[in-house]
Amino acid sequence: MFTPKTKQPSEMMTTPELIAQTNQSLLADHQHQLYHLQEILAKKQIDIEPVIQKLQAFQVSVPSWALGTGGTRFGRFPIGGEPRSIEEKIADTSLLHQLTGSNNAISLHIPWDTSLDYSAVRQFAHSRGIKFDAINSNTFQDHPQQVYSYKYGSLSHTKAEVRRQAIEHNCEVINIGQQLGSKALTTWLGDGANFPGQNNFRKAYERTAESLQEIYRYLPTHWQMLIEYKPYEPNFYSMVIPDWGTALLLAQQLGDQAQVLVDLGHHLPNTNIEQIIARLAGIGRLGGFHFNGSSYGDDDLTTGALKPYRLFLIFQELVNAMWSDAPTNASDIAWMIDASHNTKDPIEDLMQATEGILIEYAHALLIDQKMLEYMQEENEVVQAQEILQAAFRVDVRPLVAEARFRNKACIDPLTFFRAQRIRAALIEKRGVASRATGL
Amino acid sequence: MFTPKTKQPSEMMTTPELIAQTNQSLLADHQHQLYHLQEILAKKQIDIEPVIQKLQAFQVSVPSWALGTGGTRFGRFPIGGEPRSIEEKIADTSLLHQLTGSNNAISLHIPWDTSLDYSAVRQFAHSRGIKFDAINSNTFQDHPQQVYSYKYGSLSHTKAEVRRQAIEHNCEVINIGQQLGSKALTTWLGDGANFPGQNNFRKAYERTAESLQEIYRYLPTHWQMLIEYKPYEPNFYSMVIPDWGTALLLAQQLGDQAQVLVDLGHHLPNTNIEQIIARLAGIGRLGGFHFNGSSYGDDDLTTGALKPYRLFLIFQELVNAMWSDAPTNASDIAWMIDASHNTKDPIEDLMQATEGILIEYAHALLIDQKMLEYMQEENEVVQAQEILQAAFRVDVRPLVAEARFRNKACIDPLTFFRAQRIRAALIEKRGVASRATGL
Amino acid sequence: MFTPKTKQPSEMMTTPELIAQTNQSLLADHQHQLYHLQEILAKKQIDIEPVIQKLQAFQVSVPSWALGTGGTRFGRFPIGGEPRSIEEKIADTSLLHQLTGSNNAISLHIPWDTSLDYSAVRQFAHSRGIKFDAINSNTFQDHPQQVYSYKYGSLSHTKAEVRRQAIEHNCEVINIGQQLGSKALTTWLGDGANFPGQNNFRKAYERTAESLQEIYRYLPTHWQMLIEYKPYEPNFYSMVIPDWGTALLLAQQLGDQAQVLVDLGHHLPNTNIEQIIARLAGIGRLGGFHFNGSSYGDDDLTTGALKPYRLFLIFQELVNAMWSDAPTNASDIAWMIDASHNTKDPIEDLMQATEGILIEYAHALLIDQKMLEYMQEENEVVQAQEILQAAFRVDVRPLVAEARFRNKACIDPLTFFRAQRIRAALIEKRGVASRATGL
Amino acid sequence: MFTPKTKQPSEMMTTPELIAQTNQSLLADHQHQLYHLQEILAKKQIDIEPVIQKLQAFQVSVPSWALGTGGTRFGRFPIGGEPRSIEEKIADTSLLHQLTGSNNAISLHIPWDTSLDYSAVRQFAHSRGIKFDAINSNTFQDHPQQVYSYKYGSLSHTKAEVRRQAIEHNCEVINIGQQLGSKALTTWLGDGANFPGQNNFRKAYERTAESLQEIYRYLPTHWQMLIEYKPYEPNFYSMVIPDWGTALLLAQQLGDQAQVLVDLGHHLPNTNIEQIIARLAGIGRLGGFHFNGSSYGDDDLTTGALKPYRLFLIFQELVNAMWSDAPTNASDIAWMIDASHNTKDPIEDLMQATEGILIEYAHALLIDQKMLEYMQEENEVVQAQEILQAAFRVDVRPLVAEARFRNKACIDPLTFFRAQRIRAALIEKRGVASRATGL
Repeated sequence: MFTPKTKQPSEMMTTPELIAQTNQSLLADHQHQLYHLQEILAKKQIDIEPVIQKLQAFQVSVPSWALGTGGTRFGRFPIGGEPRSIEEKIADTSLLHQLTGSNNAISLHIPWDTSLDYSAVRQFAHSRGIKFDAINSNTFQDHPQQVYSYKYGSLSHTKAEVRRQAIEHNCEVINIGQQLGSKALTTWLGDGANFPGQNNFRKAYERTAESLQEIYRYLPTHWQMLIEYKPYEPNFYSMVIPDWGTALLLAQQLGDQAQVLVDLGHHLPNTNIEQIIARLAGIGRLGGFHFNGSSYGDDDLTTGALKPYRLFLIFQELVNAMWSDAPTNASDIAWMIDASHNTKDPIEDLMQATEGILIEYAHALLIDQKMLEYMQEENEVVQAQEILQAAFRVDVRPLVAEARFRNKACIDPLTFFRAQRIRAALIEKRGVASRATGL
Repeated sequence: MFTPKTKQPSEMMTTPELIAQTNQSLLADHQHQLYHLQEILAKKQIDIEPVIQKLQAFQVSVPSWALGTGGTRFGRFPIGGEPRSIEEKIADTSLLHQLTGSNNAISLHIPWDTSLDYSAVRQFAHSRGIKFDAINSNTFQDHPQQVYSYKYGSLSHTKAEVRRQAIEHNCEVINIGQQLGSKALTTWLGDGANFPGQNNFRKAYERTAESLQEIYRYLPTHWQMLIEYKPYEPNFYSMVIPDWGTALLLAQQLGDQAQVLVDLGHHLPNTNIEQIIARLAGIGRLGGFHFNGSSYGDDDLTTGALKPYRLFLIFQELVNAMWSDAPTNASDIAWMIDASHNTKDPIEDLMQATEGILIEYAHALLIDQKMLEYMQEENEVVQAQEILQAAFRVDVRPLVAEARFRNKACIDPLTFFRAQRIRAALIEKRGVASRATGL
Repeated sequence: MFTPKTKQPSEMMTTPELIAQTNQSLLADHQHQLYHLQEILAKKQIDIEPVIQKLQAFQVSVPSWALGTGGTRFGRFPIGGEPRSIEEKIADTSLLHQLTGSNNAISLHIPWDTSLDYSAVRQFAHSRGIKFDAINSNTFQDHPQQVYSYKYGSLSHTKAEVRRQAIEHNCEVINIGQQLGSKALTTWLGDGANFPGQNNFRKAYERTAESLQEIYRYLPTHWQMLIEYKPYEPNFYSMVIPDWGTALLLAQQLGDQAQVLVDLGHHLPNTNIEQIIARLAGIGRLGGFHFNGSSYGDDDLTTGALKPYRLFLIFQELVNAMWSDAPTNASDIAWMIDASHNTKDPIEDLMQATEGILIEYAHALLIDQKMLEYMQEENEVVQAQEILQAAFRVDVRPLVAEARFRNKACIDPLTFFRAQRIRAALIEKRGVASRATGL
Repeated sequence: MFTPKTKQPSEMMTTPELIAQTNQSLLADHQHQLYHLQEILAKKQIDIEPVIQKLQAFQVSVPSWALGTGGTRFGRFPIGGEPRSIEEKIADTSLLHQLTGSNNAISLHIPWDTSLDYSAVRQFAHSRGIKFDAINSNTFQDHPQQVYSYKYGSLSHTKAEVRRQAIEHNCEVINIGQQLGSKALTTWLGDGANFPGQNNFRKAYERTAESLQEIYRYLPTHWQMLIEYKPYEPNFYSMVIPDWGTALLLAQQLGDQAQVLVDLGHHLPNTNIEQIIARLAGIGRLGGFHFNGSSYGDDDLTTGALKPYRLFLIFQELVNAMWSDAPTNASDIAWMIDASHNTKDPIEDLMQATEGILIEYAHALLIDQKMLEYMQEENEVVQAQEILQAAFRVDVRPLVAEARFRNKACIDPLTFFRAQRIRAALIEKRGVASRATGL
């Protein structure tokens, strides 16, 4: 395996005092707006207190690789100051969390984030207030020291020895996750085919099921296994787990600890994603969720920047599932931002994504579920639409800002980040040519 | 229910003698080409005899409504001579089967095809060599005498009385099917929503499952229930059964007699349909198949006219499933042409569809499955593609013509239909303004 | 041509007094919210007065056929009380305009809306405060008394006599439009092909260009010809004018009075429509715009109900074009709602559409164009996104309500329509089985 | 600029004698099949001689970067033996051309293919029988020594100095092309935006037009400028030249030497590409064509491996344009294979692509254009389909093999390449870790 160099973690880029002090200057304005919103919503019998509390409690994790600049197959344009080690990635996550109050966890990718001393890593993260969310295996790339290539697949490979290597990698990832305090393994496979005839759909599926079974047996009893699906890329004719139906079939075969993970960008054009969410939540198999935004495919753009209403509808399904007696409790779901920051500062992009998520969650929390249910029962199509739009059209930014404020984070994180010139400080510390591991 | 007028069945539009006689004039040329093909394929160790026999045995049914002109919401341009009664639809199917030798069954739609005397209908069909394939219920339209409207759904409706009406309709369809000798019920629901918020995804699904359960309990033990899915239309935000995953979940809840029905036109853009076929076949849940062609959505065009290679790949999955030990035996699958003939003569279009189907089935039968399996095991991507393309590039028309010839049908059905001026005869008999029930 | 029966126009369904009186009860609340919004926006140097004035001035027309229930090829579920004549359609438009203040024009479709006395029709419309927007020809359906069928096309037909008939129909439509005071002809062609080989792309285009040239020559000098494009339906392999590029080529060949008309639902999956708007506006060829909403294709749903952010981005292009020196002045553009009301009350649906349009127009008017331009120049991707989102996240409903209030329309039109039980009154007057001409 | 190391060109990997000798062993079988096909087609009044001659004359160029292994953003799996220099790329192209007889040109990409001595490069290519096709600029990546970054665009960049740099790069590419004997410049821009608001559509277009104008002025009078369009990637919200309409507008502004280049993979889902081909050919603006295959987007797979019928329809448009009096003469079109070989041997993949292209060209050449035209005039939809399918269903492999044989290339190139173990020889010569410049 890798022999990662342990670097000194970066110093803290800001302090609670500085944040508090900056907030003071914004407070009057903020509270004025919040008060007005409270007043308006109160007239509609909506109490903002539980909404704010739910927003405060909502935490979405950050994938370790997203703290560096992303790229396409056509190129990559680095920004500088990227984290060079697992510690620096944790430091950046911690910084982000200080600013937003909503990103208290990191999701590691092995082997991009290996360490010689996981106990030290855990301790460092603990000291910075960061937890370890679902941990990700990677069998879609070839890594140095690796015996067999994944060129033609990993868990679905035709050769037993390649599958064995991939299975063992996943078990090792579980080992690492246990040392860090993770409670879920996320498996995303690049396995598939570029051409008709290249693989046997049925056998590829069966081999995948068998491989997953071995990993599942290795899974600690309090862990979850999250199975991600994707219709295309990096294979462009067929992926072994292309859709939620296949992921669900696998989860059914594996057992109750296996769940489906939905990534917003992993769907065919025009897919009604919120209905998939509702279906999985309704049968108790929704285990994880990756946020991003897209116009075409797995574009990995900022979530909420392109189709905020879809994001709102997705949150409505989750809120509705929690409100009703659906088996899935959204509080168990592993939330992660899964975007690639090609032309924006990664930390700024993560702040925009987190804001976009919280805004649509807030909108969904304003929906009058009981009234909506009534209108649905009566087939009052016009009124049902009115109820959703009435919630969506509220300017909920004061609620989100208040949640941040109560979480001791910034009322206006992006402005703070810029005013404090944090990217410049990171570049000075780590260099303009520093490059995070990852895509 | 309806009180259909029983009309005199149309006279036979052709005779076996005339067909045989016409074939005679084409025989020399046909056999010359067949002989050459046999010779070439023999060099590749392919025996054409079993291929021809499989082509002879393959039968694809015709939906009763497809014998009339179809249309879009923008208009309909009738052709004349359309069948005016169930008997005339059977007569047209029989005529088609005389010409092609591959369409020995009709698939009825209730209430479009009701009768006062199903025993007589069955007898008439028997006399014309036509069987009754899966029978279709219709709860997506409102019919005269119907108490409740399906405007807001049928089996998924929020009101118990509407669901009850739809359930009873399905049971009645089973009753009719039993009198005719059908062995499967096809349920396609138009149920869904045009707008976000209009329905509760979870409850709509659960109500549908409960309704289907009632129908399933009514199903004779030797029958199958075929559950069809469709992503959109007639509802344009959400359909209650939008994808194969949902159809499968329902089938799992119902029991072993429930199967999924795949309609080629019912998929989102870029869907890999052959992989869905393989998945369903691999778990023994592929029950039926509707052939058509499309570029955009449920365009209901002639199958094979737009994407013949996709049709070939689909047949490869079926042939491969039969060749291997997959649970699904393709001989049990209900095959149907499900196209709408808007700008072509319906009977001519059905002949072109049947030809397109048999050609791709023939191509798939030429694939060297054993060699393909070997190349797949070895990840010989280039060679696997070569094997598929080698089969697809063969001109198999002589094989298909030979199968027709042996089935005592026309070597060249379309030319025969035109030369005999059969459409003109139908118009003379039934009038230019005759209109078949259906879409 | 048709001999339409002239019916007595429906009585007024409401009065200005009733509206004013109802508004009084809502005024305090409304003004409180408006005042707060004014205060907040003032801090950002945004004056709401010009915004409200622009909203007041914005008028979107209603197509005559959209006042009745729409349907799909699978069925139609009428609501009752539909307008039975051109006068009743004008009456419904007038009613809508009384409620919204933003729908002062109707767009007629010939031959659905023929009359024996257009002068009387014009006078009646004038008395009801309704103008005549672009007038639409219809050569995609066959009508009684028509000599040649449009089954295989109209302006692109291979036969000169069919093209002649279609050209003359368009000229007649211009004649009618002149009598009514229209100033634009909208041509949408259903012409195309369902199958490869069916038509010659090049010749079909050239014949269309020639036919349009004849119509163009007939066009009064102060009129515009609006050329609409659509990628598919009712033809499903190819449409003669499938995309904006083709529509533009035709407009270039015709002359300066020819413009492109963009219908939101007439695009392939994932099309960036706002960029097309910008392109056409940038070269002075954007002539008309049809509003609707869709998830899959030409779904003809309520605009803004599915993708409000896209609608906002489209308005941003229009606002930006007006703000800058782009050749197209958005005030010349023919705006129309082009949706089909299958499961909603048509008048309610039109109110929701109008509200959705005004809300996104208002959002776009809040954008700081100068600051956005600066951020674009500096490639400040993060800040440019912030500017758009900051505008979109404002709750602009008070601005839209104020515009309505100043236009002497309802502060809350939908509630008013329901409270006054207007649909019930229409059904009582026109009957439950009344059916509007149209789709 | 780069300082490329000039390496010794690779030795010839095969000889004409070896090819001739291998062909001898296949000749009897080949000629038997060819004779039979000739006989069958003669009965249909088709003379195979002109078909074979056209196939012989058809030459499709190879992009220099496609001779190495491609990859996705998720990884790259090299095959070994990749060309390390421009000379080795020419050598590989020459080898390919020896085997296929249809790839007599290479298309260079600057700065991936720079040299210190273009005269020597040209001479070397000449000695190997290889010409230089359209030459490609690259302003979508940052290169060492480059002053300004293309992170936010090149020819459309907001800053004049970046546009200047990109313009000068294009002029330098023209200089290089002139030294080599190229006659066309291909410009593909990655310019665009990932987020709404990021750029001003109108200004970005205008800046692009101005930049292209400068390059156009530098263009030698006998050269063509080929403008390529692409809807998305590497930018995922908007591309500056997203569709054929925009590319055409630019070409119109530039002048007669500017033409549109169509890449098969650069279209939205469900686009009717053959109609675009027909439109551009019909107005004399089709300048170039990039072949590849895709199921989802710009998948860059082997052309013909996924949708051979579409490729056939595209060739039908080209053949029909040549047959008729359309302005575009297909003999002037720059043909190129533009695929990425991620999981196949690049040379084998290029052989499969070339075969796929020639097969569909051959199919199209068999179409009875006169009869098709007649059926189109008569709206004989069924017969028009029959004519296309009749041509497509012919097994034309003997014609393609004969064209190769007459061009002194291999009757069966792929088998030859394998039997001669050419990849192994390349690896031995160049090493397993050699890596071609490119994507």
